[in-house]
Amino acid sequence: MKIPVMEVFGPTIQGEGMVIGRKTMFVRTAGCDFRCSWCDSKFTWDGTAKDDIRMMTAEDIMNELKAVGGDCFDHVTISGGNPALIKGLSSLVTLLHAEGCEVALETQGSKFQDWMTDINQLTLSPKPPSSGMVHNLAVLDSIINQVNKERISLKVVVFDDADYAFARTIHQRYPELKFYLQVGNPYLDETVSNHTEKLLERYEELIDRVMDDHQMNSVFVTPQLHTLLWSNKKGV
Amino acid sequence: MKIPVMEVFGPTIQGEGMVIGRKTMFVRTAGCDFRCSWCDSKFTWDGTAKDDIRMMTAEDIMNELKAVGGDCFDHVTISGGNPALIKGLSSLVTLLHAEGCEVALETQGSKFQDWMTDINQLTLSPKPPSSGMVHNLAVLDSIINQVNKERISLKVVVFDDADYAFARTIHQRYPELKFYLQVGNPYLDETVSNHTEKLLERYEELIDRVMDDHQMNSVFVTPQLHTLLWSNKKGV
Repeated sequence: MKIPVMEVFGPTIQGEGMVIGRKTMFVRTAGCDFRCSWCDSKFTWDGTAKDDIRMMTAEDIMNELKAVGGDCFDHVTISGGNPALIKGLSSLVTLLHAEGCEVALETQGSKFQDWMTDINQLTLSPKPPSSGMVHNLAVLDSIINQVNKERISLKVVVFDDADYAFARTIHQRYPELKFYLQVGNPYLDETVSNHTEKLLERYEELIDRVMDDHQMNSVFVTPQLHTLLWSNKKGV
Repeated sequence: MKIPVMEVFGPTIQGEGMVIGRKTMFVRTAGCDFRCSWCDSKFTWDGTAKDDIRMMTAEDIMNELKAVGGDCFDHVTISGGNPALIKGLSSLVTLLHAEGCEVALETQGSKFQDWMTDINQLTLSPKPPSSGMVHNLAVLDSIINQVNKERISLKVVVFDDADYAFARTIHQRYPELKFYLQVGNPYLDETVSNHTEKLLERYEELIDRVMDDHQMNSVFVTPQLHTLLWSNKKGV
């Protein structure tokens, strides 16, 4: 079964979430069921990069990972778009494990696949109101109930007050799961000036808010390290 | 048994290591068996802040944590100095757990204490050559052999080539442990300009180096988030 691949790149660091800082390769799949207003990878679903999509087998992807990353990786992050749309990723996850790699997955949590139970670090990032999307939490419940909780984290991006309220709701719904609040990046223009400074200001505001909130104690508050380093550059 | 306390502050984020981003309180103990050249908390051992040291019981510390942090915490990080010098921390760790808090500890790993087996996140940071210290790895071995490996991480600060070589040695000695390379901060002057930018440049250099090194695959490469945000400010 072939997999629609948009990008294969790395090794680089995972810039966010439960394995922030981890040396990893990225496989970015094409296609998404969401259309988030502030999506930083719109090219995976808006048609602008449709000529870059390649239909690849798990073996094709493994070969490309080795061609790009050499022997400098033992961890692969599958991101999108929404890779959870792709049933055929089962073969890739199996092959990566056979090759000695850990596998992380990034998805909003709108769809379950059997192979999710094999993912080493599963990040579920339900989308807050500012995205323009409405999340079906029953689906999120269903995923969480089927996967080893030690391997899951929740990540909510926060741009504004309504997003913060949403983050609280999610944390209270699943208090036993590792929970990450991630500062939103509204500056998606490649040419934005003082990007790092602006993001750190927003990050500090989010920290201040969480520190004063006794309903948000067992949480992590994180930036996107890659954005602090490389702004909106692709392929890093 | 009284504990020499230098600072109690928070809640803030843990800026580094295995629980980077975690909302936490800090208890900083006084005294250290090391004298690292680039120590960012020299006041804990160089005598300049000796009038700030308070001898406190576990209950005193718990009361102060509540006075400072209110009900806005469920995680406490014990740092130093080297808190592993203090036998009496046993009572604090027990009390924090009884109060429903997780407890993290930061130490170089030069001394074992029985209470280390109760720490939820134990960060051992053997000091590289640029510190001017020589680490007794037999002691580090002994600590690691007595503590649940799931709860340990190793963290090595890297300033230069020799430090990087040391980091490699440590990672190879304990390949089963979570391993963090942390970019060194040589700019300890409060008034340094463009601190964040300079640190991010050094961080990027370290990332580049690790990404090209096939002997450093199963690793994390991290900055100090608090330093990116707040430079060398104390108490955050």
